[in-house]
Amino acid sequence: MKNIQKGAILVLSGPSGAGKSTIINTASDNIGKYYFSISTTTRNPRVGEIEGRDYFFVTKENFEKDIEAGNFLEYAQVHGNYYGTSLKLVREALEEGKLVLFDIDVQGHRLVREKMDDITTSVFITPPTLSELEIRLRARGTDDEGVISQRIENAKEEILAVSEYNFTIINDTVENAAKQFVIVAQAARLKKSQEDEIKFIARWLS
Amino acid sequence: MKNIQKGAILVLSGPSGAGKSTIINTASDNIGKYYFSISTTTRNPRVGEIEGRDYFFVTKENFEKDIEAGNFLEYAQVHGNYYGTSLKLVREALEEGKLVLFDIDVQGHRLVREKMDDITTSVFITPPTLSELEIRLRARGTDDEGVISQRIENAKEEILAVSEYNFTIINDTVENAAKQFVIVAQAARLKKSQEDEIKFIARWLS
Repeated sequence: MKNIQKGAILVLSGPSGAGKSTIINTASDNIGKYYFSISTTTRNPRVGEIEGRDYFFVTKENFEKDIEAGNFLEYAQVHGNYYGTSLKLVREALEEGKLVLFDIDVQGHRLVREKMDDITTSVFITPPTLSELEIRLRARGTDDEGVISQRIENAKEEILAVSEYNFTIINDTVENAAKQFVIVAQAARLKKSQEDEIKFIARWLS
Repeated sequence: MKNIQKGAILVLSGPSGAGKSTIINTASDNIGKYYFSISTTTRNPRVGEIEGRDYFFVTKENFEKDIEAGNFLEYAQVHGNYYGTSLKLVREALEEGKLVLFDIDVQGHRLVREKMDDITTSVFITPPTLSELEIRLRARGTDDEGVISQRIENAKEEILAVSEYNFTIINDTVENAAKQFVIVAQAARLKKSQEDEIKFIARWLS
């Protein structure tokens, strides 16, 4: 009896500066085979960003063609730029039995729920407080004041959606947060798709 | 920041003979402090059953008084006898931060969801197939043919409700099943009550 089927989705949301990447990196040896979904965007690459590692960079025209063709699992327009998740790579990773990790916002989470609710688990990752978030954003020194203010405003909005998520991880220490993340990832893998449940029942009764 | 709050509920359902007790016993060192909820019943004790360990045995009159007083989290009538879960002990265990385990049926699960959905996780535990269940029921030799037939009929009904549960554990080997149960129990503990979420948001924004 195969218990872990065709892969599953784990959505991570939470303010920029919550420490999502650090948590994933710390936990990565204990969460099995996973695919970190890379977004496609129309914004320009920043210094140091690499095509296919940080984003897939495309033109607005191509992005809109892909929207028309239904090639996105979810997409959104943020500050005039498109960001989206290509369905193709997600499907391939799921077929290979991988856990597909998405780092997307509250809106993106809602769109994934609409399309793949049955195999999706979600976790909201956040620093302990808003002031702690501000401290971390300043400490990392990658954003100017305008961007920091924008991130703070977004965070105030997003925290209100925390109850839409299956889990919340408060990143007080990376060790704690990574330990909880491992539990969440393992639980995500145990989720069965509706299709698999129906097959299971049929086989069970036969 | 306290991450694990006032305890949580984990509902276990699945046919008699699925191996629930064995799984819990095997997993028990790795699931933290828990309270296995003991049902109250009006049926007569069987040979070897102990008051306060297997059940709380009460009269029909007292049971019905407790129903009137709203003292049950859930209750049902099965084959002419009442079975129920007293709210008082559950509340105490939750206050102590324990994981409260319930071994109840599909109907009981629905009733717990109605009252304590936000802190409840549920898992359906089952042998790999119906014929395997029959083999196990006969092998354990505790039930006569009539009871076995009844259990088989119940199982056929209950398996159809598997999609109402957060997780399904197929008990092919106890080691496998116990390992999955540990993940489920740990995930259950990470669930936050609605009350705690509201408090968290308020504190976060302050």
